[in-house]
Amino acid sequence: MASSRRQTLTLRRVAIDTFRENVAYLHRDCALYRAEGFQALAKVEISGRGRRILAVLNVVDDPQIIAPAELGLSAQAFDQLGLAEGRPVRIAHAEPPTSLAAVHRKIAGEVLRHDELAALARDIVDNRYSKMEMAAFLVACSDNGLTREEVLSLTRAMVETGERLDWGEPLVADKHCIGGIPGNRTSMLVVPIVAAHGMLIPKTSSRAITSPAGTADTMELLARVELSPKRLHEIVRRHRGCLAWGGTARLAPVDDILISVERPLSMDSRGQMVASILSKKVAAGSTHLLIDIPMGPTAKVRTMREAVALRKLFEFVGDRLGLHVEVIITDGSQPIGRGIGPWFEVRDVMQVLHNDPDAPQDLRQKALRLAGRVIEFDPDIRGGQGYTVARDILDSGRALAKMQAIIQAQGPSQSEVEPGRLRRVVKAERAGYVVAIDNLRMAQIARMAGAPMDKGAGVDLHRKLGERVKKGDALYTIHADFRSDFRFAVDLAERDNGFRLGSEPPAQVDDGLVY
Amino acid sequence: MASSRRQTLTLRRVAIDTFRENVAYLHRDCALYRAEGFQALAKVEISGRGRRILAVLNVVDDPQIIAPAELGLSAQAFDQLGLAEGRPVRIAHAEPPTSLAAVHRKIAGEVLRHDELAALARDIVDNRYSKMEMAAFLVACSDNGLTREEVLSLTRAMVETGERLDWGEPLVADKHCIGGIPGNRTSMLVVPIVAAHGMLIPKTSSRAITSPAGTADTMELLARVELSPKRLHEIVRRHRGCLAWGGTARLAPVDDILISVERPLSMDSRGQMVASILSKKVAAGSTHLLIDIPMGPTAKVRTMREAVALRKLFEFVGDRLGLHVEVIITDGSQPIGRGIGPWFEVRDVMQVLHNDPDAPQDLRQKALRLAGRVIEFDPDIRGGQGYTVARDILDSGRALAKMQAIIQAQGPSQSEVEPGRLRRVVKAERAGYVVAIDNLRMAQIARMAGAPMDKGAGVDLHRKLGERVKKGDALYTIHADFRSDFRFAVDLAERDNGFRLGSEPPAQVDDGLVY
Repeated sequence: MASSRRQTLTLRRVAIDTFRENVAYLHRDCALYRAEGFQALAKVEISGRGRRILAVLNVVDDPQIIAPAELGLSAQAFDQLGLAEGRPVRIAHAEPPTSLAAVHRKIAGEVLRHDELAALARDIVDNRYSKMEMAAFLVACSDNGLTREEVLSLTRAMVETGERLDWGEPLVADKHCIGGIPGNRTSMLVVPIVAAHGMLIPKTSSRAITSPAGTADTMELLARVELSPKRLHEIVRRHRGCLAWGGTARLAPVDDILISVERPLSMDSRGQMVASILSKKVAAGSTHLLIDIPMGPTAKVRTMREAVALRKLFEFVGDRLGLHVEVIITDGSQPIGRGIGPWFEVRDVMQVLHNDPDAPQDLRQKALRLAGRVIEFDPDIRGGQGYTVARDILDSGRALAKMQAIIQAQGPSQSEVEPGRLRRVVKAERAGYVVAIDNLRMAQIARMAGAPMDKGAGVDLHRKLGERVKKGDALYTIHADFRSDFRFAVDLAERDNGFRLGSEPPAQVDDGLVY
Repeated sequence: MASSRRQTLTLRRVAIDTFRENVAYLHRDCALYRAEGFQALAKVEISGRGRRILAVLNVVDDPQIIAPAELGLSAQAFDQLGLAEGRPVRIAHAEPPTSLAAVHRKIAGEVLRHDELAALARDIVDNRYSKMEMAAFLVACSDNGLTREEVLSLTRAMVETGERLDWGEPLVADKHCIGGIPGNRTSMLVVPIVAAHGMLIPKTSSRAITSPAGTADTMELLARVELSPKRLHEIVRRHRGCLAWGGTARLAPVDDILISVERPLSMDSRGQMVASILSKKVAAGSTHLLIDIPMGPTAKVRTMREAVALRKLFEFVGDRLGLHVEVIITDGSQPIGRGIGPWFEVRDVMQVLHNDPDAPQDLRQKALRLAGRVIEFDPDIRGGQGYTVARDILDSGRALAKMQAIIQAQGPSQSEVEPGRLRRVVKAERAGYVVAIDNLRMAQIARMAGAPMDKGAGVDLHRKLGERVKKGDALYTIHADFRSDFRFAVDLAERDNGFRLGSEPPAQVDDGLVY
């Protein structure tokens, strides 16, 4: 055999961001490897100096992008391999991940054991799965594809393949909403209220993937959210709470990878959702968790039967993992508050914290009810008294003071954001009552307008469910900064503005009601 | 609004071959579109001059690859859009394909109607599906996920979304093997025998995707296989047969797209397979079709029960489409012939055509039996006489003469291929009988050695099932041309050489037996 040195290519970084899919670039005229031979395969393995990653192969015909003696890696793949440009690397056919056999068994309807799901989670976190393969797994798990024992195993496997935080206290509270309701920014109220009560609530949130704002995107308008685990601990120990981005600690990383496939597929499998939420919470060191399941005709959960089945699944898995889980089912029939998009949601939250009489009452009521339930995790609080405790904290200004302390501790934001300058007022086409507001549509319009990347983009609601309107009354205003985004959002609203008007008021209008 | 001209980017071709996934490249600092806003989405829509395509978006940070005012398209995407470089193009958020709702219904276990499957096939052929979304559909259809009526609808929809050939004759024969058996190059014998009998057999074949050789890859060693539909018609009319690549006519293009996802996933769903094969044959204008289902421990079909269920599904769909289908179940316990890989398979085929006494008898017998059954589609041939007719044609040299005529007509190949110069003889580690040869392993070794891209790469078998060997006897030789390929193949054979030796001869050894 020739010396192995002759079989290497020179590593080069290709400045292409391929969004959670590693791509390797090989010139078609590479003298060492037959580019076409690799291409039909799901993955190739790139290695050098004892390090290895898996990637999809693209064949390049332009030596400007990659020369025949070079091997290019997309930005993320290059970082993952962790070698400098110019280093020698080699390519090999990647064996399909061993755990793919379990995926095929799952597709065939079989029940997987914990060790199989654990091996699968390890292969996913090692980046051995292509997006197609993950899609196959997710579909096989969808609907009733996972038994509750499998959901438990998957949750455990997702926790085990990442880091875990330990706060060194017996009661670490958290709250989580399953999502789907625009403007539902209750965490930014619950955290300061609960922390002001003295209970530990180190809230780490995600950024939005396909929704117009995540708590991290919104909080970022006020303070830094990317904090080192060390800094996070200091802040939480001092202030009893934080509102940070969860991405700096590698908590249940498998979940982030699966979500990047699940979201574009619009797949929302119950088992997957429970595993995703609970694995993140257990990894984040929570001991007591309140889950909010909004229910409504355009919410993720549309009937009480579904809501109860989901509640029981959360309880089953939570109990087995030693996590105290309480689930409440809330009104998900319309957006919460008035703003959709980071700037508008911050405005709503700050109005509530300032006890502004114009503050959206549904957001205030919902936040108080949730905070009250979290406060009742405190053994010293009598059942049913949490709401009153929470209201006292909010009304007295202690919640606002706590929020300001958290902002100072995390580092106040310097950026001056204004609502998007491009504006379109969407008006009622007839007189009547607002009988329905489509959550999905409103989220989509705000997203198209540029939220959450553009902090000032989004939707400002002027009317809510049950209100009476005259023809031509403003229903909401779309705000954007980029002309192309503005056009996309306005086009969408022109096709269907998400509001349904009727001649009679809707049967029942809730004000942040908790069922 | 600003004039729409201001919202365009300049089209540029990016010389990257992304293998059946359209990719668009946008600079991160593009002033018109927020690159990150698009990225989590499954697809974006690129349009210009009334043409539009869908693509996945990659964000670029290197102006050498794409400048901020440009929009790049990968090689295939650029061809699909069909506009010249420098033209103005625009980007929009692609709506998820409408038919994705049907995929979600299928995932939930519902049965789809013909119109839903037809809409799905149109969306796939219009490239509206991402690979992830197709993987979701394929998984939902896997195993018993499709009823036989759905398989029929899907087959029809796949035919309707492509071109159809019409040969203007009442009997157009074809044969097809479901695959999985290396060296099984019977088409190159059946076609000349059947055409020499005078029956029309215009065989269009695929290239190998994940196997070491397709009939098109192998025939290419002897003659041109990429023929225009017009030229194909002339040849077939004159010679009654051809051995061409099917890709020049757009026959059931949905099938090619689904296969590009299915193969790397190693998904072989029965319904999908039947729809794939029959849609191609109906589109190719066949009226009578013989299907070969090899059965064996390492074949695609492993039990007689599976084989019979598959046979019935072929018959059901074939009958409804007015295609006369006959199915035979053959011995799939080991590779057919001696060679695996284009050069070696051509050698085996030519030995049989020349009535060489050294010709592999299993390949000769199997080809004669299949040709005999096809010839019996002729109403003038008495049932059971096909084999004798076929044998007479082969023995008399008329099959060879017909093959030579077809080669001349298609255009003889000029390239001189030799068996790969890098060789490794794999030897018996003990004395005994060959009791098993793993089809999958042998195919994988030949594929790694470079087949079918390197025509001289592959495996030459020296021993077959039931033969007695001494320790150190040569079992097979691996041939390769590229050092890296050679290394991959040898490594694979060293880990498991695919042969199992035992002390007793295997219970029953077939010689190309047809059950």
